[in-house]
Amino acid sequence: MQKDPRLRDGKILLSEEPLILETPLEQLTDFLTPTKSFYVRGHFPIPKVDKGRWRLQIEGEVEKPFVLNFDELAKLEAITIPATLECAGNSRSFLEPKVKGVQWHVGGVSTAEWTGVALSKLLERAGLKSSALEIIFEGADRGQLEDPKAPRGEIHFARSIPLEKARDVVLAYKMNGGDLPPEHGFPVRAIVPGWYAVASVKWLQRIIVTDRPFNGYYQTLDYAFWKRDGDQARLTALSQLATKSVIIHPGEDETVPANSDIRVRGAAWTGNGEIAKVELSTDGGKNWNNAKLLGDPRPNAWRLWEFQWKTPSHPGRATLIARAFDSRGRTQPVERDPDRGSYMINHLLPITVEVR
Amino acid sequence: MQKDPRLRDGKILLSEEPLILETPLEQLTDFLTPTKSFYVRGHFPIPKVDKGRWRLQIEGEVEKPFVLNFDELAKLEAITIPATLECAGNSRSFLEPKVKGVQWHVGGVSTAEWTGVALSKLLERAGLKSSALEIIFEGADRGQLEDPKAPRGEIHFARSIPLEKARDVVLAYKMNGGDLPPEHGFPVRAIVPGWYAVASVKWLQRIIVTDRPFNGYYQTLDYAFWKRDGDQARLTALSQLATKSVIIHPGEDETVPANSDIRVRGAAWTGNGEIAKVELSTDGGKNWNNAKLLGDPRPNAWRLWEFQWKTPSHPGRATLIARAFDSRGRTQPVERDPDRGSYMINHLLPITVEVR
Repeated sequence: MQKDPRLRDGKILLSEEPLILETPLEQLTDFLTPTKSFYVRGHFPIPKVDKGRWRLQIEGEVEKPFVLNFDELAKLEAITIPATLECAGNSRSFLEPKVKGVQWHVGGVSTAEWTGVALSKLLERAGLKSSALEIIFEGADRGQLEDPKAPRGEIHFARSIPLEKARDVVLAYKMNGGDLPPEHGFPVRAIVPGWYAVASVKWLQRIIVTDRPFNGYYQTLDYAFWKRDGDQARLTALSQLATKSVIIHPGEDETVPANSDIRVRGAAWTGNGEIAKVELSTDGGKNWNNAKLLGDPRPNAWRLWEFQWKTPSHPGRATLIARAFDSRGRTQPVERDPDRGSYMINHLLPITVEVR
Repeated sequence: MQKDPRLRDGKILLSEEPLILETPLEQLTDFLTPTKSFYVRGHFPIPKVDKGRWRLQIEGEVEKPFVLNFDELAKLEAITIPATLECAGNSRSFLEPKVKGVQWHVGGVSTAEWTGVALSKLLERAGLKSSALEIIFEGADRGQLEDPKAPRGEIHFARSIPLEKARDVVLAYKMNGGDLPPEHGFPVRAIVPGWYAVASVKWLQRIIVTDRPFNGYYQTLDYAFWKRDGDQARLTALSQLATKSVIIHPGEDETVPANSDIRVRGAAWTGNGEIAKVELSTDGGKNWNNAKLLGDPRPNAWRLWEFQWKTPSHPGRATLIARAFDSRGRTQPVERDPDRGSYMINHLLPITVEVR
């Protein structure tokens, strides 16, 4: 099932520097992905941050800018939320024709419990000015970009959210109950639930409240798509997760016994809503069956699902397709929207298995 | 002096489709550039617009959207303004290392008198809603872009300005007193004085008032630069003309007689201000002399200048450099700012001549 034999800590090594590790599907068995299985996507070398010297600056369109050290942050009221993070390029290897970018299969997605401080607490303390429009998160990670259209010299990784999204954000210093590992943003990561993971800035060091749209590199030339608006198309930063389901088991090209009961299982997620239904077709899309949703719905987290499949009595190939519907009526497109470039890949992805 | 022997209507043909024609420097002798000498920069094939069937739609965040035909437009109060238009990539051929894009020398700039209707008259009639933030101009020109990061399918050329710039805009149907020729936007071009010419949308067909930043292709992936803001860089649409001067005569590598009086002449312009001073060095930047500004200052138009140069008594090479200062204290940088990408090329450009 695993097409890339190069493993690193049990994950599939897609890039050494920046470090990019995909989670093998067989490790996605539980609602919470173990921290060691959680996929990794960096943009620059992992910065070495000393927790004792770490500082977080809150500045910009605020009445009282301030600086916080780690102990001060850790003393504030903590909350814990689950959140599914998906790389905006997850499933890119399925795009035809091939496009540039990290060639993710399906494992650029994982779910963890994040513990930290609500961003809104810090913004209340700083006092937002009425001019506040967006919140920029800046990471300690930095470097030079090869893209000739990128800014020259070193830049820091940074991403912004509109003010109204700030109430959902947790400045997390724990992941699944343990310290945040270096590759996941030690000591603090801004978790933006329900959005593509690019917004969840690792190695957080500055929070800048701004009165103008940020338009940084990672939300314009990268991690953006074309939103149609009549005859015009507007370059728009990726934000909310698109409704998506994946089949985790069986895997592509696996062999299943004929005339047997097979447990097909997978996961489904959506942005700003909950998964209402997952359907599975085992005959290439002719007929659709309701899959069983497992556990309880949790905001901004995936829903695992399963379906007991009675495999055909005769040997041959079978095509399985899953499709999810969310509580706001959104589902997955059958075909790819080219205006999404190499991102937000949530169209139906059939897999075929060998029935023998 | 002319390095490209391919001429089209007396101008230098840089591209056949889209049609791009550079004005030879020797045709830039007067304050107003004759229409036939005015440089041309298209992005798509020139659209064939029938004046009788032409319509202008005013829509979006307005109380009363409406449609206007040409006769209705031409009956409204007309105003005439001079405006210098410069292509944002003018002088690109001087960049080292070489960059992609049209290889303009210095002749991607011209000045004309534009006659038409003040945009503000139409906006008053439509009644702006309080949500109005930007004005989008859409041209009739359209096509598919080769850039893999561009929107898929056909798009129209379009550009936006912030609301506060709208008061300067003239919807021009005459150029230097004559009908607008097809290559200059017949029947109507939105003239945005003081800005790079990309904002002056030709073949205007729609005016869309919008409540959000437009972020169309021609102000994000194209015709944009990186504006530094502390550690961050924001992708910013090109707008105001940068302060710039060019030497029109003598030309690069021309021969001038030793120990003679030579009239060095040129032009200088700036965005949102007027040219206060032009200095000329004839010894490679060691000494600077005030050039004489000709005519009277006109808002958003260039200023021609001249300097009586007493050439050296001994044969050799002489390096001439012009630099302009504007009424807001802005001048030209000595070196190129790489965050400007392949646009806004206003750093000092020395020329050398042979004294014999």
